[in-house]
Amino acid sequence: MATERLVVVGGDAAGMSAASQARRLKGARELEIVVFERGHFTSYSACGIPYWIGGQVAGRDELIARTPQEHRARGIDLRLRTEVVELDLAGGRVRARDLESGSESWTGYDKLVLATGARPVRPRLPGIGAHGVHGVQSLDDGQRLRDDLERTRGRRAVVVGAGYIGVEMAEALVRRGFEVTVLHRGEQPMSTLDPDMGALVHTAMNGMGIRTVARAEVTEILTDTEGRARAVVTAAGAEHPADMVVLGIGVEPRTALARAAGLPLGSSGGLLTDLSMRVRGQEDVWSGGDCVEVLDLVAGRTRHIPLGTHANKHGQVIGSNVGGGYATFPGVVGTAVSKVCDLEIARTGLRERDARAAGLRFVTATIESTGTADYYPGATGMTVKMLAERRTGRLLGVQIVGGAGAAKRVDVAAVALTAGMTVDQVVSLDLGYAPPFSPVWDPVLVAARKTVTAVRAAGM
Amino acid sequence: MATERLVVVGGDAAGMSAASQARRLKGARELEIVVFERGHFTSYSACGIPYWIGGQVAGRDELIARTPQEHRARGIDLRLRTEVVELDLAGGRVRARDLESGSESWTGYDKLVLATGARPVRPRLPGIGAHGVHGVQSLDDGQRLRDDLERTRGRRAVVVGAGYIGVEMAEALVRRGFEVTVLHRGEQPMSTLDPDMGALVHTAMNGMGIRTVARAEVTEILTDTEGRARAVVTAAGAEHPADMVVLGIGVEPRTALARAAGLPLGSSGGLLTDLSMRVRGQEDVWSGGDCVEVLDLVAGRTRHIPLGTHANKHGQVIGSNVGGGYATFPGVVGTAVSKVCDLEIARTGLRERDARAAGLRFVTATIESTGTADYYPGATGMTVKMLAERRTGRLLGVQIVGGAGAAKRVDVAAVALTAGMTVDQVVSLDLGYAPPFSPVWDPVLVAARKTVTAVRAAGM
Repeated sequence: MATERLVVVGGDAAGMSAASQARRLKGARELEIVVFERGHFTSYSACGIPYWIGGQVAGRDELIARTPQEHRARGIDLRLRTEVVELDLAGGRVRARDLESGSESWTGYDKLVLATGARPVRPRLPGIGAHGVHGVQSLDDGQRLRDDLERTRGRRAVVVGAGYIGVEMAEALVRRGFEVTVLHRGEQPMSTLDPDMGALVHTAMNGMGIRTVARAEVTEILTDTEGRARAVVTAAGAEHPADMVVLGIGVEPRTALARAAGLPLGSSGGLLTDLSMRVRGQEDVWSGGDCVEVLDLVAGRTRHIPLGTHANKHGQVIGSNVGGGYATFPGVVGTAVSKVCDLEIARTGLRERDARAAGLRFVTATIESTGTADYYPGATGMTVKMLAERRTGRLLGVQIVGGAGAAKRVDVAAVALTAGMTVDQVVSLDLGYAPPFSPVWDPVLVAARKTVTAVRAAGM
Repeated sequence: MATERLVVVGGDAAGMSAASQARRLKGARELEIVVFERGHFTSYSACGIPYWIGGQVAGRDELIARTPQEHRARGIDLRLRTEVVELDLAGGRVRARDLESGSESWTGYDKLVLATGARPVRPRLPGIGAHGVHGVQSLDDGQRLRDDLERTRGRRAVVVGAGYIGVEMAEALVRRGFEVTVLHRGEQPMSTLDPDMGALVHTAMNGMGIRTVARAEVTEILTDTEGRARAVVTAAGAEHPADMVVLGIGVEPRTALARAAGLPLGSSGGLLTDLSMRVRGQEDVWSGGDCVEVLDLVAGRTRHIPLGTHANKHGQVIGSNVGGGYATFPGVVGTAVSKVCDLEIARTGLRERDARAAGLRFVTATIESTGTADYYPGATGMTVKMLAERRTGRLLGVQIVGGAGAAKRVDVAAVALTAGMTVDQVVSLDLGYAPPFSPVWDPVLVAARKTVTAVRAAGM
C-alpha cells in the first residue's frame, strides 16, 4: 500500500485539528501529513488574546493548546515560518517559501487542506502602519501589543471598531489602566446586535468609563516625530489623542491563494465547501476555519463567520473525512457570545435586518428579567429580544444583553433554532429551574411568551 | 350573558397562575373567580425557602410573588385559611371549611381547578412529631423553622434525605453555622442522578464539611424530657445527635379529595390530565402543579415531578383554557438543577435505570471539562455524563456535576431531547463560545462526541 500525503496549509485551529484527527484515524505508514504554517505558533486560542492583553491570562503559552513539538511527536511534519505561496491544483502540488531563508520548493499532495484563516481588515489610511497601532488577530500581534504595553507611558487608548474584538480589547485596556475611547461607524456598538440592543451595550460601556463615539469614520492616524501614533482623526474632523491604537475592525477570509488557483469563493471572499467541508467542485481539496463561508441555517445562505469554535469543528470534520471516516458540518445558526467587563452580550439567529434580507416577515418582542430568582442575592438584570416569523411563529433569532448568566442562555435559542421550533414550542421547554439559576420562568421563556402574543396579534 | 364561576382549590403557583391568567382573559362580569387556600399565603416560591433559611434571602415576604391583597385588587375572591374538604362533581360544587371558625359551606362552580399541591412524606416513626423536627414544604413550615433557628442553642443538625431539598437544606444549615449530617437511603446522595454521578456529589459534600451517611433508614427520633428531638436513630442502630432535624424525604401529590371524588390518578397518586391540563374524562375540571402527573416525553409515560416551574406553566395553560383561550402543556423531559454550596448539579432526560425501565437499550459516556476556557482565570471543572439510544444514537439523558456554569448547561440537552436530536446532531450544535464562557468545544459537545463514538462502537 502506497503512503498518501496530506498537505495542510495553515497550522492553527482548523488546520491542526484536521491534521490531528487524520492522524488519529491513519498511521504514518498510510498517511504522511505535512503542515505549512507561516507564523511561529500552532493551535492557539486567538479568542484568548484580549484576556492575555488584559492580564487575566498570565502568559502566551497558556493560549497554546498544543505545541509544535507535541504535533511533531504525533507524526505530523510541521514546518513553521513556511508560507505557501502558490497552489498548483492540476499538478497536485503547493509551492512553499521558507520565510527565514527565502528559499522555495514544491511539495506534492494527494489531499490538500486549506486552513489559511482570516486577516484583519486594515484600511489604507495615512499612519495605519505607525508604531503603536496594533491588530490582535494572531499570537504574533498579541506579543507585539504586550511588548508595546510595557514600553508605553501614556494611558490614552483608542480602539477602532466596537464588535467582539473591539469591546473585548476595550475591557483589556481598561484593566491595564488606560482611558479608553472606542470609535465605531454605526449608530451603536456591537453591530451584530440590532441597534436597540446595541444601545444597551453603549449605555453600559459608558457607565464603565469607556468613551464611545458613534458614526466615526477613521480617516488618518497622526504620528509624532518618532513615527509613533499620537492621535486618531475621523471624517467629522475630530482628533482623538492616543498613546496606543488597537484595530478591531474585523477580518476577511485570507483566500488570495485560493482565488489565484480558481477555487470558488462566496461574496465575502470565503471559500465555498460542501457539507463534508470539501471545496466545491474539487475531489481532493478541503477547507475550513476562518477562510470559508458557512451555511447559515436560518437565513438559508452562506456567510463568513470567523469563530474558533467553528474552526475546530471544521478541522475535526475534515480530519475525519481525509482520514477515511465520515463526518459533516451541517451549518450554523449564528451564535456568538462576548462580554465587556461585567456585561454579557449574546446573539443567535437573525437580526431584524438579516430577516428582511432573507425575505422573511417577522415580529419581535423584548423583555426584562433576571438571571436568578429576583429575590436571590446578587440577581442581575437582562434584556432578551426575540424574533419570530409571522404566521408560522417559527423562532428566527434571539439577542441577550445583561449581567451574570445572560450570555450562555442564548444556547437554548441556538438549539431551538437548529430544531426549527416555533416560539409556542419554546414556551413549553423544560429548562432547569432553581432560585440560584433562574426565575421560575426562565428569561428566554418569558421572551417566547411575549413573542407568541406578538405573532398572534400580527395575524396572518 | 350569565356570569360563570371558576373555583380554584389551592392558592399557590398553579392555582394563582390559573386564576390570574383567566382574569387577564375575562373580566369580572364574565367570570367570577373564587380561590380557596388553606394556608396563610399565596403565590410564593417554595423553592426559595432553603435560601431564606440560609439567610441569603432576608425576609419571607421576598418569596411572595403576589400578595392576597394584590390578587383581590385584580378581582379574585381569595379566601385564605379556608380548606376545601369535599368535591361534589355531580352537583358542581365544593364544600369548604373556614379553618378559624370551623364553619362549612358549599360553593357552586361552572369550572373547577384543582391545585392542591403536594405534601411532604412523613413516615410514621416514633418522635416524628417532636419539636425541632421540620418539613420545608410550605411558607408556614419555613416560618416555623426560622423561629426555631432563633431559639435553638445546639449546633448539630440532621437532614433526612439527600435529594434537592436535602442538599439545599444542608447548605442552608451550614451557612447557619450548624454541623450537618445528611442521612440518605441510597448508595449515594442525589438519587435523581446515576450513582456514579451521585458519588461526585458525595465527595464534594464531604469536602465542604457535610457528613453524609449512605444506606441510612431512619427508624426513630429520640426526644428529650421536653419533647424536643435530640437524636435520629437508623435501622443500623446508629444514633445521630441532633439539635434540629429537617425532613427532605420528598413529597407526594395531595389528592385525597380527588381520590374521594373518583378522579383518575396515576401510580404516584397524582391526577391524570389531558394535554390542556383538563382532568381526564372531565369536561369542566382542570388540574396542575404538584398534584398532577406530567408526561415524560423521553420515557413515554406519566410521572410525578413536583417543580415550581411546571406548576407555573400549568397554571398559565389552565388559565388560558378556562378563560376561553387555547394552550397546552406538551410534557417534560425531566430537567432539574440544584446546588450545594459551590457545587452545581443538573440532570435532564433518563438515568440508566429510567432507560432500562422504559425498555430502551443505550450507551453512556462521561467526560471532564471546564466551564470556561481552561486558561481563563477561575476555570472550574465539570463532569458530564450522557446517555444515547443504541443503534439510533438518539439522545436520552444528560447529568452534569461541577463548578460555576455547570447546571444551566443542561438546558442545551433539554432542548435537544425535546427536539429528539441524535448525539451526532448535538455535536454540530452552534453553541456560544468565548473564553469567559466556554472552552472552544463546549462540555456538552465534548460529551456528545464521546457518546457518538460509544454508539458506533456498540454497533447495531
